[in-house]
Order: sequence, then C-alpha cells, then structure tokens
Amino acid sequence: MTVQHSRGSYEIFFCQKSDIISHLPNESPIITDTNISQHFPDLLKDRNVLELAPGEDQKTLSRFAECVEWLASIRASRSTNLIALGGGVIGDLVGYAASSYMRGISFVQVPTTLLAQVDSSVGGKVGVDLPQGKNLVGAFHPPSKVVVSTDALATLDERQFVNGMAEVWKYGFIRDPELVEELSEVRLNPQHPQLEAIVRRCIRHKRDVVEADEHEKKGIRATLNFGHTIGHAIEQVTGYTTYLHGEAISIGMIAEAHLGESIGMTASGTAEKLKHALVHQGLPASLNSPLDSQTLIQTMKVDKKAMDGNLAFSLLTSIGECKLVQNVAEGEVLKALAQI
Amino acid sequence: MTVQHSRGSYEIFFCQKSDIISHLPNESPIITDTNISQHFPDLLKDRNVLELAPGEDQKTLSRFAECVEWLASIRASRSTNLIALGGGVIGDLVGYAASSYMRGISFVQVPTTLLAQVDSSVGGKVGVDLPQGKNLVGAFHPPSKVVVSTDALATLDERQFVNGMAEVWKYGFIRDPELVEELSEVRLNPQHPQLEAIVRRCIRHKRDVVEADEHEKKGIRATLNFGHTIGHAIEQVTGYTTYLHGEAISIGMIAEAHLGESIGMTASGTAEKLKHALVHQGLPASLNSPLDSQTLIQTMKVDKKAMDGNLAFSLLTSIGECKLVQNVAEGEVLKALAQI
Repeated sequence: MTVQHSRGSYEIFFCQKSDIISHLPNESPIITDTNISQHFPDLLKDRNVLELAPGEDQKTLSRFAECVEWLASIRASRSTNLIALGGGVIGDLVGYAASSYMRGISFVQVPTTLLAQVDSSVGGKVGVDLPQGKNLVGAFHPPSKVVVSTDALATLDERQFVNGMAEVWKYGFIRDPELVEELSEVRLNPQHPQLEAIVRRCIRHKRDVVEADEHEKKGIRATLNFGHTIGHAIEQVTGYTTYLHGEAISIGMIAEAHLGESIGMTASGTAEKLKHALVHQGLPASLNSPLDSQTLIQTMKVDKKAMDGNLAFSLLTSIGECKLVQNVAEGEVLKALAQI
Repeated sequence: MTVQHSRGSYEIFFCQKSDIISHLPNESPIITDTNISQHFPDLLKDRNVLELAPGEDQKTLSRFAECVEWLASIRASRSTNLIALGGGVIGDLVGYAASSYMRGISFVQVPTTLLAQVDSSVGGKVGVDLPQGKNLVGAFHPPSKVVVSTDALATLDERQFVNGMAEVWKYGFIRDPELVEELSEVRLNPQHPQLEAIVRRCIRHKRDVVEADEHEKKGIRATLNFGHTIGHAIEQVTGYTTYLHGEAISIGMIAEAHLGESIGMTASGTAEKLKHALVHQGLPASLNSPLDSQTLIQTMKVDKKAMDGNLAFSLLTSIGECKLVQNVAEGEVLKALAQI
C-alpha cells in the first residue's frame, strides 16, 4: 500500500514477523524499548541499539533529548535511516528525533502494537507530550517506509491488544458502518484469521484521510480525533499512568457521543450503542475514579484543535459519519463529562 | 525583498528602529533575552514576553523546552504568530520552538545583531546545539516575515558588531569580490551611511543561495559554511563561552583558506589576504590558547556536512568563489590547524 504526501510517498509492507528483517536497511540504528526488544532479538543483532524505558509517560522532551544525543554519540549522519521498533510512544518519539536530528533524517516505522499499526505509524505525525498537554511538540515527518506484521501482535498481552481495538472501532464509528457490524460479529484477537484484513482496512482509512489533509488544515484529518479531545485530557490529567491511550479514547468516544447527542449533532441512542460495543470489547466506558471536570476542560483548551481557547471536537452525526465542530459551549462539555 | 521557499514566500522589511512595531502582529507573544529587552521597551508593552538568559551557550534543548512549555502555559494556539527578538541564538532557538510547537506555528524574525541580520534570520534554518555539536537538532522552518532595522545596531557594543562583520566578509570571500574591495576601503561601523546598503547586499546573497538550495541538498547552500567546519568545532570545543560565533568563523576562514591552498584548491596567497582583512577589521586570526587538534577533528566528524565520518569543507577557489569539497584527508586538516 502506498501513501502519497507533500514531499513524496512511502510504502506500507505487510509481512510475517520473521520477514521484518528483510525490509530493514542494513546496519541502521534502532531505537526501541526494553519491553519490546526481548521479542525481536534477530532485528537487534549487529546494529547500534538504544533501549528506552517503556510506558506512555516516556513520550517527553527528556527522552527526545536522549534519542538525539545518542544519535550524535554513534555519529549518525544525514544518510542514516533510523528504525523505530515499538508501539505508538516509540514511533512518535523516534519519529520526532528523526525529524529534528540534523534537521531531518529518514526513519522506518516498525509498529509492534495494534494501536501503532492501525493508527500512529501511518501519516507522519510525530512528537512528544508536554506537562501542559499531549503531542504539543512535534512535526509532520513521514517515514521512509512502514513494516507491519500482524503476527508480531501475538507478543502483546490482552490489555495492550484491546487498547488498540479502541482505534479500530473508531474507524468504524467515524467512517465505516460495515466495519462496526463486522466487529460486532467477530471478537477479534491476535490469532484471528481476519486480523490482517481488518488492520489493512483501518490503515486504508488512515491513508485516505491523511492523503486528503496531510497537515490537518482542512478539518478532515482532525475528524480522526473523535474521542480524543476528552480522551487526551483524561490521559494528561492522570499523568499517562492510569489509562492506556485506547482506554482513555474509549471513554472519550462515549463522552463525545453524549456531547453530540446533547447538542443535536449526533443521532439519539448513539452513545448507548458505542458503550455496548466498547464494553463488550473489554474497553472501559467510564472513569475508574472521578476527575475534576474543570481541570479536564482547562486541559482541553490547550489541545491543538482548540483555536484560541475555543473547544473543538470531532463529533459523530451517526455511526459511520463525523464532522469537526468548533466553539462547543463549556456547559455542554460539563454535561457530557457527567456521563463518564 | 521577497524570499521564495518550498511552502510559499516571505518578505524582508527594512525600517527605522522606531517603525519595527508597525510590522509586528498585535498581541503576539515575544521571546527575547535580558540583554536585548532593555533596548526595545515599546515592543514588549501589552504582550506576553519570555526573557531568556543571554549567551551563545544558551542554544540548548533545555532552553527549547522552556520556550515550548511557556507557549503552552500562555495557551499559544495554531494561530499564534510568535516574535523572535534578538540575535542569532534567539532567532535559531525561537524559530525551532515555533517549528515544533503544535507541529509548527508562524514566527517573525526581528534580528537585533548584525550577524542575525545578514545571516541567521534569513533562510529558515532553525535549531539548537547538542553537547556533541553545533546545530545538530533543528528544522527548516521559514519565518512569516523578517524585520531588519540597521539603526537598531547602534545598541550593540563594538565586539558584537565586529562579530557580525565576519559573516559580511564571508559573503565577499565566497561570492562577491567587489564587496571585499569595498569593505577594505570603508571601515564599517553602526553609524556608517553605507551600512544598510551593505546589509541589503549580504541578505540578497543569502536569499539567492537559499532559494537555489533551500534544504541544503545540492551542495550550494553548504558553501555558505566557508570557515564554519573548523569554526563550529572551535566554538563547540570551547563550550561557546570563549569566542563569539563570528570570531570562531574568522579563525575558521583563515584555517580553511590554508587548507584549500595546501590541497591545491585555493589560489596561493589567499589565506594571507584574508588574515590581513580580518585582523584589520578587529577579528581574530588565531586561537587565544591552543586547542587539541584531534579533539577538533573528532568534533568536525559529527558536523552535518560530514557524511558518514568523512570531513567536508566549503573551500575558496579564489577570492569571490567557493566549492563544497568532500573527503578531505585528516592530515591536511591537521596541517591547517597548525596555522591558527
């Protein structure tokens, strides 16, 4: 599958885990994390390897500094093609390091989680979080290629796999009602024969959206953020340690469906349908313990979609369709937060 | 004057110091340093202002983090047009913050030193230094406009003004033999009636070069780095506290002229001519105290022009012409270093 972007294009390769190595440039350095490295010993052989601490809370400017200083220490040059081996945190962090080191070097995405495969590894958005908000620092820096192996997902524990399913459901909710039906019928797991077909289908959605609005300037790419305005705020306020990204987004999608219903944008009953599907998938529909609504709203105001402090949301019209909505009233958001 | 780049174009405005404010967007936040702010009280009124510590050693990832976290704390949004008021360090640092905050916001360059006016504020190169080397982390992020006021240079002390003259002479050496003659006749100072004309002439050279090779991929833009391979290494090894940028580049140009003569690239006698002109300008021709040559060479190998550890230099053929040369032998570089 090919992804076109403003400076060229890149290929997404689908292969067996054992074939990943054949797609990687020889001798290129790898950045990964200590959870992942143990599952890919053959990829690490005879290369410079930086193993970072794992975790959602590691997507910071400090880890970014560690990556670029390591690249300088191994004398990476402008011809280096850096490999990012890992989940969304590694892909975003290493991609941002590649975008900035020597003002931009090439990098290969090898996503090892379902979430990274269907979402973050495609589209060129890279970056890190700030104490004030998620993904507030970064770049648009497309990879030179993406190598996807769905059988590598067998190394994930169930919580990590289910975490990625939140983004799979999201594609259904925002632009693929047939996918919602299909997911309701099969309970997807890493061994399921349908897995690769569904991952491809999600990536195709992502590809179509980012090709139409690479730099998120037309209100198209921003629709991918359904569930994310509230979901990001939940992650941020809980310090990235309580919820995995997909778990926060699951709660966020339900809250934003309530919000859409409340302002008359979303068909009535949609929030209940989403809740049923996501809970059946093993994803959370509500917070473990309450969070202060005002703190969540203040956090949303620093969100990149919020223009000059006005709250913005990607909201469903019905299952399979969505739209970017600016200037949502705080009172409506408070009502939606009361539902989770 | 207009500068074309891959994503559009921007204007360079020339004006009186008192007219700078009329070119600045209302209410835009400003980042500056504590040395500069005192000279521009009218620009800082009724705005969010971040004042950083001054100094060449402040172009770090830590200061970058301070800038982007400050932007988040004042809730800068994608519509913010950030103002960089200061010399090369502020322009590079703030430009990199603008390139990365929310994956890229607009920024205005208001260069307040001669060096920033004739060189760093034009062309879109932004970034910070790493412990391992100069400008190793950054981006290509053109400003939305540049506002140049040569009468603002009257606030500079003589050392800072002479520092900028190193880059002015450089344009002469690499592409403008008439400028070399002119500079030899007038001793430029901040009050000289020719100053604005010469600044414009330098900026026109910079504009022509960056338009021909914006992303430094064709060996054209890299020629601007005459004197910089050795100059950067000197700055790096001395921790950015001993020499100002132009001072290190002055020594670097003389060393690289010797290097060019030694390998038969540069016309014989050129190094002596450069030395005479630069010393007459008040710039250094040799190191205050000796530096270890091997340490300098190891530092040059992490320079961005060095591909996979091979040393690269922009070398003069004669006064007024230069060329990028790859794979220069270490022994030749050692000989040249012995001259400074």
